[in-house]
Amino acid sequence: MREIGVGLLGLGNVGAGVIKVLEDNPRAIEARLGARIVVRAIAVRDMDKPRLVEVDPGLLTTDVNAVVERDDVDIVCELIGGEGFAKTAVLHAIACGKHVVTANKALLAVHGEGVFAAAEDRGVDVYYEAAVCGGVPVIRTLREGLASDRIDEFYGIVNGTSNFVLSTMAATSQPFDEVLRQAQERGYAEADPTLDIGGGDAAHKLAILIMLCFGTSVDVDDIYTEGIGSLQPMDFRLAERFGYAIKPLAIARHTNGTVEARVHPTMIPQHWMLADVPGAKNALYVHSYALGSSMYYGAGAGMMPTAMAVVSDLIEVARNTLAGVTGALPMRSYRALTHVDVANIRELHNRYYLRFSVLDRPGVLGKIMTILGEHAISIAQVVQEVPDEANRPVYIMVVTQSAREGNVCHAISAIEGLTSVLAPTVLIRIIHTTPQPVT
Amino acid sequence: MREIGVGLLGLGNVGAGVIKVLEDNPRAIEARLGARIVVRAIAVRDMDKPRLVEVDPGLLTTDVNAVVERDDVDIVCELIGGEGFAKTAVLHAIACGKHVVTANKALLAVHGEGVFAAAEDRGVDVYYEAAVCGGVPVIRTLREGLASDRIDEFYGIVNGTSNFVLSTMAATSQPFDEVLRQAQERGYAEADPTLDIGGGDAAHKLAILIMLCFGTSVDVDDIYTEGIGSLQPMDFRLAERFGYAIKPLAIARHTNGTVEARVHPTMIPQHWMLADVPGAKNALYVHSYALGSSMYYGAGAGMMPTAMAVVSDLIEVARNTLAGVTGALPMRSYRALTHVDVANIRELHNRYYLRFSVLDRPGVLGKIMTILGEHAISIAQVVQEVPDEANRPVYIMVVTQSAREGNVCHAISAIEGLTSVLAPTVLIRIIHTTPQPVT
Repeated sequence: MREIGVGLLGLGNVGAGVIKVLEDNPRAIEARLGARIVVRAIAVRDMDKPRLVEVDPGLLTTDVNAVVERDDVDIVCELIGGEGFAKTAVLHAIACGKHVVTANKALLAVHGEGVFAAAEDRGVDVYYEAAVCGGVPVIRTLREGLASDRIDEFYGIVNGTSNFVLSTMAATSQPFDEVLRQAQERGYAEADPTLDIGGGDAAHKLAILIMLCFGTSVDVDDIYTEGIGSLQPMDFRLAERFGYAIKPLAIARHTNGTVEARVHPTMIPQHWMLADVPGAKNALYVHSYALGSSMYYGAGAGMMPTAMAVVSDLIEVARNTLAGVTGALPMRSYRALTHVDVANIRELHNRYYLRFSVLDRPGVLGKIMTILGEHAISIAQVVQEVPDEANRPVYIMVVTQSAREGNVCHAISAIEGLTSVLAPTVLIRIIHTTPQPVT
Repeated sequence: MREIGVGLLGLGNVGAGVIKVLEDNPRAIEARLGARIVVRAIAVRDMDKPRLVEVDPGLLTTDVNAVVERDDVDIVCELIGGEGFAKTAVLHAIACGKHVVTANKALLAVHGEGVFAAAEDRGVDVYYEAAVCGGVPVIRTLREGLASDRIDEFYGIVNGTSNFVLSTMAATSQPFDEVLRQAQERGYAEADPTLDIGGGDAAHKLAILIMLCFGTSVDVDDIYTEGIGSLQPMDFRLAERFGYAIKPLAIARHTNGTVEARVHPTMIPQHWMLADVPGAKNALYVHSYALGSSMYYGAGAGMMPTAMAVVSDLIEVARNTLAGVTGALPMRSYRALTHVDVANIRELHNRYYLRFSVLDRPGVLGKIMTILGEHAISIAQVVQEVPDEANRPVYIMVVTQSAREGNVCHAISAIEGLTSVLAPTVLIRIIHTTPQPVT
């Protein structure tokens, strides 16, 4: 039986999963492929580190180039992560005429255009299913399943850590720090969770999805990115009272040549399917011209789901290799990418949930309402919560009608100038008018 | 620019949609493909029938063979439907060395093995994304996205008409006949709705999914198939009271070499995502070894969603054709299919909802409970509803613990032999222990 040689870069969590998936299902994979996928060499940083799987020690090396350059390696599988060393390795692999399978969202979000252009020049494939939504095959779906469709907008829960934290806060009313600690204990959050809970990881994935869905590239730095750290249990209670769930969304819309791209915690109606995506799961909700609404849901992280996506990519690239169509026909020429400026978030319109912390004095509510009115912001609902104890702040929660974000920010500045306002205002954007199905 | 020629068989609803999608998005399709897809000829039954789209009358012919045999046709797109005429046309196209794109679930469910084997012999592709779940790309997802995974079980809402009827009955408490009439008015149900509401259409799709997911072929006639026509508004009310939703499911499980395959209305916990699939939408919930739970949701029917899936298939086959890999490497050799007998439904274990219609006499409930106990059926809940008016039946609703279906059927026979039982028992299977995520 023919063999397709794989050079593995990195043997951490996902790398170990790749070994495991290849070893668990060899016959099924051979049946689907008509060939065997064989790992020829594995580049690691530290030869003596304990591993999650047993591998032949003879496969291990610290020399990345030696793995990439082997004649019997057809596909380089990059699982190092990050934009530095991984980028050098991937570009070297492409230059050597190797196909690349990678799970590296940061690399593709920031340097995707260059990587894809190099691959097209050299006639090799770059597959990256595991880079977005882990094991859920959204890349394939968007690239091939919806190849004849035109995508208008999409809403993704693409960071499992953030979804776990928000889902748990909603269910248990525990504070953010406590829930984050639990997420770390359960392995849902890194020791340094900044990239996850700060929204940076979601912004990387959003940039990749925008490239794929709209054929446009955006600067990751231009994506408005807001983390989930400022939310408090009371916001979840109020959201529920107003009929909303709070979810960590990556949002993109393509209208009239402009692209809207943002990552922030979002209130969405409780009856939307995205509101039901539990725990650390991911989901991508897409609206397109012909298909209308569709959603893709599953495990967005974890050793086995991510490894499954990587190995499915290996199978597809191996199939191309066997057919001798090395990268000849990517679904879309990345040369045709147009670069688009992301719309300024200040110019966008949303509904808003605003929580003001004020002194318990007569007239404060009136002043706040007046300032909002002066900034052309109409009110849908107001709730005032007076604390049981004296000398604690009064909370005023406002849900606005659709308003321009620049106006909302100006109004908040003016309100925070009032002497009776005690703390910064909490702002959560509400999305309620997308073409979501009503259950 | 290179052209890929398509011969269209059928110009009904979906055929018109295919013309529309090709005309609406030509530049996007050309950019993704690097070639143009051109409809060379269209076979229709009646030349003079009014059409949903305008086409050059010169393209139309009643001669299917003339379309299939054209030298400038690379791909035959079969949208006739059914197992008779369409089968002849598809096999003739394959024999002529043409690739085939089809939306014909009946053909593939019943004759799939033969069609795929003929295609493999002749070295051509058969693509059929639109045959299951309409526009939602579940075929691609299972074949390629989960290529390295092992699927244990799946649960599909694969018939939009049935889902519309059950969703509407649950929401409005209207009787079946009334809701079906509305579905017909809104175009969600055919004039003859037998295949949809009787479960036959879902059984066809289930057979195709089983072939794809488990690599086994089953006889459609062996699939236990039960329609939705016997459900009454009160069953939905009781389901809600017991914490369930009633959904039209196609179910398959693969354990220890046996395949479970069945289509029937099913009570599932209200918090499962499948319970939220609204209106005429479709969804496929899959459990697999590495990925765990995943779900794929969207429009399972309709002109544009179905046409989108067909045209995405045309793009992929065109890409293969341009690359010169005509059918050389299907993801799985259909020759390797094993034929498996479907497990007898009498041998399966479920929970059951049973509704008995009895005379309002003392002791009836006790007799029913005794008979159930004699058949090793344990009870989880019992509700008795006494009507306001005299001389109306009393309803006894029972939710059982997990029990063998054969035992349940014997018990029902015995109970229906009691003189105080007035009408046939309503039985709805309950599924509550699959690896579904808890929201």
